Amino acid sequence: MMEVCHERAEFSAACERARGEGGRVGLVPTMGALHAGHLSLARAARRDGADFVALTIFVNPLQFAPGEDLDRYPRTLEADLDACRELGVDLVFAPARDAMYPAGFQTEVRVTGITRQLEGEHRPGHFDGVTTVVAKLFANTGRCHAYFGRKDFQQWRIVERMARDLDLPVDVVGMPIVREADGLALSSRNRYLSSDERERALGIARGLRSAHDAWQAGTRHADALSKLVRQEVEPAFDRIDYVALASPDTLERVDGEVNEGVLLIAAHVGKTRLIDNLWLGVDTRP
Amino acid sequence: MMEVCHERAEFSAACERARGEGGRVGLVPTMGALHAGHLSLARAARRDGADFVALTIFVNPLQFAPGEDLDRYPRTLEADLDACRELGVDLVFAPARDAMYPAGFQTEVRVTGITRQLEGEHRPGHFDGVTTVVAKLFANTGRCHAYFGRKDFQQWRIVERMARDLDLPVDVVGMPIVREADGLALSSRNRYLSSDERERALGIARGLRSAHDAWQAGTRHADALSKLVRQEVEPAFDRIDYVALASPDTLERVDGEVNEGVLLIAAHVGKTRLIDNLWLGVDTRP
Repeated sequence: MMEVCHERAEFSAACERARGEGGRVGLVPTMGALHAGHLSLARAARRDGADFVALTIFVNPLQFAPGEDLDRYPRTLEADLDACRELGVDLVFAPARDAMYPAGFQTEVRVTGITRQLEGEHRPGHFDGVTTVVAKLFANTGRCHAYFGRKDFQQWRIVERMARDLDLPVDVVGMPIVREADGLALSSRNRYLSSDERERALGIARGLRSAHDAWQAGTRHADALSKLVRQEVEPAFDRIDYVALASPDTLERVDGEVNEGVLLIAAHVGKTRLIDNLWLGVDTRP
Repeated sequence: MMEVCHERAEFSAACERARGEGGRVGLVPTMGALHAGHLSLARAARRDGADFVALTIFVNPLQFAPGEDLDRYPRTLEADLDACRELGVDLVFAPARDAMYPAGFQTEVRVTGITRQLEGEHRPGHFDGVTTVVAKLFANTGRCHAYFGRKDFQQWRIVERMARDLDLPVDVVGMPIVREADGLALSSRNRYLSSDERERALGIARGLRSAHDAWQAGTRHADALSKLVRQEVEPAFDRIDYVALASPDTLERVDGEVNEGVLLIAAHVGKTRLIDNLWLGVDTRP
C-alpha cells in the first residue's frame, strides 16, 4: 500500500522507519505533473536497490521569479498519485507551502560558482530556491540516494555540489533525459504548447541530433557544434536565451577544440520556455 | 578514553556509532582557545543527558572578514585537549581547513532576516560563515543537542533559526554567559587585552549591572536602559559599534516601554573588539 503524507514529521518518520528496518531509501524530488521522465527516476531508484522509494511533490515557490509561471504551473495530484501507485512507489510526500515554509522562514542555501551562468543568468535566484528546498527535502529524508533528471543538467550538478559541500548523507544520481518518439524532451511544461508550438519545439531535438551526429563523426570544435543547434532552433523559436557548449563539471562555456562538453539550450516558443541538452559522447542520439 | 579525530568521515562514524548504541549525542562547536564558558557547554551537554559528548575545534576562516583577527586568533590545541580530557569529553573533532573546505567548495548557508542588524551590520558576511560551518558540523554529527553560549546571543538565535528552517534534527540550546568574578564575560579574545585594557573592559559589566538593577527596580524604557550601559562604556572604550536593546526573537531594536529585551553591546578597546549582552529579566546580575 502506498502511503501519502503532507506533514514533514510524518515523512521523516516514515523514511527513518524504513532505514531502521535496514532498508535503503530512494528519493525522487519533483514538482508533480508527473511524466515518464519522473517515473523513470522512481524506476531507477528501485532498480538501484532502494527498499523504500519516496517521491515528493511540491511546487516550490522559491524557485520561481516574479513573472514566471508559478501560478499556472500544472498541478495534477490525483493523476500523479495514480501513476505512483501503479509504479509501486512506497511513499508520496506532498506538503502544502506552509509545511515547508512556515511563518518566519528566512534561511537560504546557495551554491555560488556553477549557478552563475546559463540558467542562473536567465533565472536570477532560481537555483537558490532549488538548493534551499532540496536541502530541506534531504534533511527530512535522511540518508538516501536521490534521483534527478539530466534534462535539468545544471540543476543536477548544483544539487550534487550542494550535497557534497554540506556533507549531506545523500548520493545524488543524474538520470538520462526521457524523450518522446520524435525527440521532444519530456517536460511538465510541454502541456503549455499548442500543436503548432509543439511542432516548432522539435527544432531543439533536430539541432541536438545533428550535433550528436557531427560529434560521432569527429567534429570537436565548440562553435561548430553550437552552430548546428542554432541553425535548427533559430528559425523555429521566438527567442533563444542561450545555446552553449559547457564543461559538465563547472558549467563554464568551453571554446575551441574540446574533449568533452554538454550542449545546453534554453529557448522560448510562444509563452513557453523550454530547456534541453546533450551530453556529448555520453547521451544517446536524441 | 577521549578520541581525537581530524577527518570528517571518522567524526561522523563515531557519532553514528554512539547513536546506534542508543546513545544521545551532545555537540559543542567551538573555535578552540577553550575557556570556562566553553567547558560549561560540555558540562551542560552531559547534565542534559548526553551519552556521548563531542566537542569540535575549528577556527573557521569563512566567518572572518579580511582585516579581522583570523591570523592571530589564539590556537591552543594541546591545552584544549587536556581540558576536554579532564572534563570527560568523549570525542574532539579538530579538522584542518581543507577537511572542511576542500578545493571546489562553493556552497553557503545564509539566514537572511535576523542577520542584518547588530553584528551582521558591523561584520558583513560573518554570520554566513557561521551558519555555513555549523550546517556542515550538524550534518556530520547527525541527530544531536548542540550547545552554544549566549555571549554570542545573535549567533545563537541565528543558528537556532537555521536548524529549524532547514529541518535539521538538532536541538539548539543557548547557555548563560560565564563571567570572571569581576564581571568580565569570558572570551577567547580576552587574552589580547593588556592589563590596562582589561581594566577598562570592565566598563561593560558595570554598565550591564546598572541596567540589570534598574530593570529589577522597574525601569522599562529602552533609551533609559541603553543609556545606563553607554554611560559606563563610553569613557572606557575607544569605539562603540552599538549599544542596543533588541527583541530576543527578531533581534530588531525595540523602542519606548518594553516588556522584554536583550541589551547588546559591541565595543573596541585598543585593537580588541568585545561583545557582551544582558537578557533582561532572564540573566542573573553580571
